[in-house]
Amino acid sequence: MKHALLACLLALPLAANAIQPVTAAPDDSLTLATQLRERAMAGSGAFDLVESLTTEVGPRMAGSPGDARAVAWAVAKFRSLGFDTVYIEPVRFPAWRRGHERAEVLSPFPQPLHLTTLGYSIGTGGAALEAEVVEFATLDALKAAAAGSLDGKIAYVSNRMQRFRSGKGYGEAVAARGAASIAAQRGAVAYLLRSIGTDHDRLPHTGVMRYEEGVRQIPAAALSNPDADLLSNMLRRGQKVVLRLDIDAGMEGEYESANVIGEVRGSERPDEVVVIGGHLDSWDLGTGAIDDAAGVAISARAAALIAALPRRPRRTIRVIAYANEEQGLIGGFQYAQAHADEVKQHVIGAESDFGAGRIYAFATSPVPEATRAVVETIATALAPLGIEYRPGEGGAGPDVSPMVQRGMAWAWLAQDGSDYFDWHHTANDTLDKVEAKALDQNVAAYAVFAWLAADSLADFGSTTKPQAVGKE
Amino acid sequence: MKHALLACLLALPLAANAIQPVTAAPDDSLTLATQLRERAMAGSGAFDLVESLTTEVGPRMAGSPGDARAVAWAVAKFRSLGFDTVYIEPVRFPAWRRGHERAEVLSPFPQPLHLTTLGYSIGTGGAALEAEVVEFATLDALKAAAAGSLDGKIAYVSNRMQRFRSGKGYGEAVAARGAASIAAQRGAVAYLLRSIGTDHDRLPHTGVMRYEEGVRQIPAAALSNPDADLLSNMLRRGQKVVLRLDIDAGMEGEYESANVIGEVRGSERPDEVVVIGGHLDSWDLGTGAIDDAAGVAISARAAALIAALPRRPRRTIRVIAYANEEQGLIGGFQYAQAHADEVKQHVIGAESDFGAGRIYAFATSPVPEATRAVVETIATALAPLGIEYRPGEGGAGPDVSPMVQRGMAWAWLAQDGSDYFDWHHTANDTLDKVEAKALDQNVAAYAVFAWLAADSLADFGSTTKPQAVGKE
Repeated sequence: MKHALLACLLALPLAANAIQPVTAAPDDSLTLATQLRERAMAGSGAFDLVESLTTEVGPRMAGSPGDARAVAWAVAKFRSLGFDTVYIEPVRFPAWRRGHERAEVLSPFPQPLHLTTLGYSIGTGGAALEAEVVEFATLDALKAAAAGSLDGKIAYVSNRMQRFRSGKGYGEAVAARGAASIAAQRGAVAYLLRSIGTDHDRLPHTGVMRYEEGVRQIPAAALSNPDADLLSNMLRRGQKVVLRLDIDAGMEGEYESANVIGEVRGSERPDEVVVIGGHLDSWDLGTGAIDDAAGVAISARAAALIAALPRRPRRTIRVIAYANEEQGLIGGFQYAQAHADEVKQHVIGAESDFGAGRIYAFATSPVPEATRAVVETIATALAPLGIEYRPGEGGAGPDVSPMVQRGMAWAWLAQDGSDYFDWHHTANDTLDKVEAKALDQNVAAYAVFAWLAADSLADFGSTTKPQAVGKE
Repeated sequence: MKHALLACLLALPLAANAIQPVTAAPDDSLTLATQLRERAMAGSGAFDLVESLTTEVGPRMAGSPGDARAVAWAVAKFRSLGFDTVYIEPVRFPAWRRGHERAEVLSPFPQPLHLTTLGYSIGTGGAALEAEVVEFATLDALKAAAAGSLDGKIAYVSNRMQRFRSGKGYGEAVAARGAASIAAQRGAVAYLLRSIGTDHDRLPHTGVMRYEEGVRQIPAAALSNPDADLLSNMLRRGQKVVLRLDIDAGMEGEYESANVIGEVRGSERPDEVVVIGGHLDSWDLGTGAIDDAAGVAISARAAALIAALPRRPRRTIRVIAYANEEQGLIGGFQYAQAHADEVKQHVIGAESDFGAGRIYAFATSPVPEATRAVVETIATALAPLGIEYRPGEGGAGPDVSPMVQRGMAWAWLAQDGSDYFDWHHTANDTLDKVEAKALDQNVAAYAVFAWLAADSLADFGSTTKPQAVGKE
């Protein structure tokens, strides 16, 4: 009952003077936040942006022809959304190319297997590779295998990812995606894993891997979950199982893409920025609807709603559509390097990169005592959207994390990711997985957060840290 | 309440003398039916059979190498199940071969499309075909197109199948799968349709088609549902959409497969048979778990439970694993032709070919007045399984239908098909879609039905009809 009463109170329109943030915001700040929330919920147009990007560009793997089309799309869209400035910042990276990928059981039970090569993996060298497969129930079991014990064999880790709203099963399982070099060190000629995904679809999940330096490189690929079941069921019979893998993939030169940036310029402190965004690249298998057309659309529509208000926020809101998140947050690292001297002016940042589910929780990195009331005001303005304030929880989104490593404050707008890993990094990442109403709720949350953070002059705690650790 | 009371009463173990069928069955007939039901529900082993067929044979498209392996598998399994006789009857048919199948949008929004060629379709003739696509919202709209209006174009029917427990949406949508000749008659160079399926997976649904005689043959393929959405969304923009199709497929010689038959011989009238079965072939894309390893496993395990009883039924129970259902009920027609003179001895037949969902309804074709009590006894014995008696509803399964056309009585054991068409004829037809407990319920129902029908001497109405209509 107490909860219901609270929810009821929070659902009332916010009066401008109902809550007074410590760092006094303009009188109409909360009224405008309420307007943003209501306008977004009445139809934010985010779904249309996702439809446009997935239909007109589709797959846009970093370094592929779709990458350049996506950048052009984002520049054109951002220009149409009423931003004050739209510009790009170049991002360079090595390009990875996927050719064909075929797998089959040769014996004892011949049949095809559905797999997909992991990003950065090499292929099988222009010919098919035939070898016995050895299963490991976990990555630790593979690590425990003796050097030479996998000589000439295919190592296969069959551990299954678990489903949680928070998506925490991903973090627990994904290390197996990077274990090709561990297998190679034990003699393996190829590395397979069960897809890092929660579905039962015959659509394998790709994702990036890296080779350890100085270790022999071997092809690495993920089996779909039903194929992993099938292979494990074959191996359970105790007979030798021989596979044929025929994979064409590899690195192919350098590529220049771009972070695409749109701004709603601040009226008082234009150099202080609140960053929101998503990533523009996708994997090549699907059309990248949930990963991450949704995040680009949510953040762009949130800023566009703010740009349509009768006045500008006091600080700048910067929307960033990051380049090449998928192959190592490359756009995020590039941004952090280019803006290394401006960490303090990046007052707070948040990225939407967890699909199209509704937001259920909000928090920020620890803020100075004087700013707590501002964060609580934001939390109160988010509550009617069904968003719970959970101080002390959460973390930064992937592409803002390089700036966070350098000292930027972050906000956490946690999406329901219960089904995210059913489709993540697969051909099934398509528009039909996105619900327009859920996107509207996301836009409402990002608009309210970005507006209130930018319309305050609060210090969220951003401060330049000693040189960050991390890849650059 | 009345319903709950009935369900409660029906759940009580059936006493041998609780109900007396008109055509007096042996005193222990109902007791043994109860035993069958309880043993099946305690663990029928049907899941293990599905696991074995899908793992050890996997895809077994009629005429493919898997076909022969499946026949060998079925003979060996039937021999191990305690049947009194196991034999095969040859089935010949033209073999269809699937090679590669690739599709992409060339303009205005280049990206790949996921499709699959329909069975019996030709390919694109060794080269890719490039043409503009024209959408029709329904098959009727295509039929309404004028001759010549599709000259040089690809016709695309985008009608979406609806979901029902009974699967009736399939019947309403599937005619579009056979419309290639209709498109060709209007000038089309290829024919595409939205998959006949209820899912949102990027796995297209295959299925057989036929060309009309004397009409130019064109390639025919189905887009996955997300790809159909994508194509429709592109076309909605009003620009010309050009596709490239590259399909290798076609007919390739004659093939001889077999219906695999196992019998529990009747003690009094061995020449009178109750037929149950499923089909042994599958499509090539999945491992054919729900279509139709489930049906083979259910009927085989039901008969095996009967074979393990202390005595034989009075009539014979014949389990048939039919050859090549998918490409036109070819095993079923072959069986009907070979047994055309024995229709009356086929006292009743039922096929399980609707996946692995639980059975919710039972009925038979109209029976003579004197047999009604026997059918009601069977219905009463099925009721504790949650199966409702629905006289006047239902119909015969596909492979028994050629015998039904000739006059054989049928039983309907209706499975819940709510999700059947999510996976039907796709790569997603795999073991993980099958629930062991649901299979046990199916086995219990088939065992009870087959036992009580075979242990009675009732006339279910089978009678030789004038020469049946239909393909042979």
